[in-house]
Amino acid sequence: MTYATAPELSPSRPITGQPDPVLLWDTFHAYQRTAALDAAIDLDLFTGIGEGRRTPSQLAEFCKGSERGVRILCDYLTIIGFLSKDDGGYQLTPTSAFFLNRHSPTYSGTISQFLNLPELVSAYGKLADVIRNGETAMVGKGTVDAEDPVWVVFAKSMTPLIGPTADFVASLINGAGRAKARVLDIAAGHGLFGISVARHNPEAEIVAVDWPAVLRVAQENARKAGVQARYELLAGDAFTIDFKGPYDAVLLTNLLHHFNDEACVSLLRKIHASLKPGCRLVTLEFVPNDDRISPAIPAAFSLTMLAQTPEGDAYTFAELSKMLKAAGFGESKAVPVPNSPQTAIVTQRS
Amino acid sequence: MTYATAPELSPSRPITGQPDPVLLWDTFHAYQRTAALDAAIDLDLFTGIGEGRRTPSQLAEFCKGSERGVRILCDYLTIIGFLSKDDGGYQLTPTSAFFLNRHSPTYSGTISQFLNLPELVSAYGKLADVIRNGETAMVGKGTVDAEDPVWVVFAKSMTPLIGPTADFVASLINGAGRAKARVLDIAAGHGLFGISVARHNPEAEIVAVDWPAVLRVAQENARKAGVQARYELLAGDAFTIDFKGPYDAVLLTNLLHHFNDEACVSLLRKIHASLKPGCRLVTLEFVPNDDRISPAIPAAFSLTMLAQTPEGDAYTFAELSKMLKAAGFGESKAVPVPNSPQTAIVTQRS
Repeated sequence: MTYATAPELSPSRPITGQPDPVLLWDTFHAYQRTAALDAAIDLDLFTGIGEGRRTPSQLAEFCKGSERGVRILCDYLTIIGFLSKDDGGYQLTPTSAFFLNRHSPTYSGTISQFLNLPELVSAYGKLADVIRNGETAMVGKGTVDAEDPVWVVFAKSMTPLIGPTADFVASLINGAGRAKARVLDIAAGHGLFGISVARHNPEAEIVAVDWPAVLRVAQENARKAGVQARYELLAGDAFTIDFKGPYDAVLLTNLLHHFNDEACVSLLRKIHASLKPGCRLVTLEFVPNDDRISPAIPAAFSLTMLAQTPEGDAYTFAELSKMLKAAGFGESKAVPVPNSPQTAIVTQRS
Repeated sequence: MTYATAPELSPSRPITGQPDPVLLWDTFHAYQRTAALDAAIDLDLFTGIGEGRRTPSQLAEFCKGSERGVRILCDYLTIIGFLSKDDGGYQLTPTSAFFLNRHSPTYSGTISQFLNLPELVSAYGKLADVIRNGETAMVGKGTVDAEDPVWVVFAKSMTPLIGPTADFVASLINGAGRAKARVLDIAAGHGLFGISVARHNPEAEIVAVDWPAVLRVAQENARKAGVQARYELLAGDAFTIDFKGPYDAVLLTNLLHHFNDEACVSLLRKIHASLKPGCRLVTLEFVPNDDRISPAIPAAFSLTMLAQTPEGDAYTFAELSKMLKAAGFGESKAVPVPNSPQTAIVTQRS
């Protein structure tokens, strides 16, 4: 399973010289794709098919639902690429077999619990107002509000796609070659990044920063991974809490995009001060190219920050490098994360 | 401007032997495409660009919005195929220039007012419950509730894409070769189908059936087209009202899909009784192939009926033919409508 080198959204139909009414129709109705996928996950339909049920009547019995409903949903899922259909009924495609059958070790259906949170989704219905008012459509400061409960859901549900990325990010730190290491994991969330460092380096001690309710999820994941003895919790706001450095490495995953340039620089200064000379900061981000329209997934992520935060953005490597320099760091290196639309930024403190 | 022979949804990425994480990611986020398009129409952004504004700052001034917001939205619209971008800024693509610039004679932005109605869209968020309960997620019987106000919005906003289709459907009736003709237009909505018959045949008299509030929209459209003197209103429920036949032709556009087989047959019997022998019924529908998964747009329309109606569906030609025979009609003929994902069913009363 690999992402394409430059992961693209399901190809916006190629732009031709002709107006394309199907693009218009499809975009007006695109939300139905999300709704159909969410419904199928909710009904655990892919597991039912994976277990060998193939007809609407077999699947209706499995879902305790109506045959008409199951048949229409399965046909729609076939149209959008999650099932195939022949005279015998429906079958999983490689994508649904890998990600959406509960019996698959890579089952990822839980991520709909976060991605489909009503308070997140409804923000997109107010994008025009967001643009007019220059604010987020969410209550308060959106997902950057103190102790926003969405991050507990995030920590609990978003782990399936993180595992390989966490291992790769951990390797960037372990690559620094320090056996005994205190590692700060800022905005730890589910904790998988720091936990992966601890799993790969039995001498590493992790200090995880996040809101208290989120840290309980990270702590439970650390316990499951058997690293809880080397997993310390530091509850609070990353911008104001005492990091209790110095550290041999700092992880900063998926946090900067929520804030404006100035806030990012102020956080990076704090990190710089808490990092030992010669040690590494590894930042994980959605990093679009300078054109801001490619690759599609990281570039499109800006819209999420527009909906959910007052001032966040998907920053280019040039912008991130500039922030890091303003905070006292030297040169940074961009490292594409395999099988992921994200980029790791590796920065050494001199 | 033409639809492909078999209009497809923006191609579900081709199914390969490999799991496709981008398909999963894109489908979870597909609703953001709809939201971005709706926001851009609301802000009239495409008109601003069509008038020559190209940079985020020029467009922010035009929209009275934030530069960050406009820039992020325009980048996203570029990713999904509605704008192009170069060093000078943004430009319209053929699709947005044709359909979404208010100065275009084919401006179709109004259709978002119907397609984006909160009561319609929110029904899709409850699809799993719909399937479990075998009901619509909407209040009462959904869009088939008596005098549902969504049909007034439909009549007012959905006209832009209808014009050429209405002319084609009218030609199927005028082709019957009757100069003096009384024509019944059932579920007239905006009225454009019957009005087109009246425009093309100065001897035709139209009787339009719909809910009273909807007929006021049709009447206004008849007045604008200069055919109001030959445009009669018959307010009420098509299933129970006296059609006051006999007629030389009947139009039945986009109505059958809302109901189950039995209800369709009972309505078709009423139509059969009100049609003169040798005269034509023209039915317009989304008609999928027997596989129910192609062509994509008519096949996907079933999901809309699942969300919005207790028993509706997109019927195949075989199913429609069977209903028509059960109602007393003879053979029917399927006629693809040019530049439209819909099919006209032409049925002669013997």
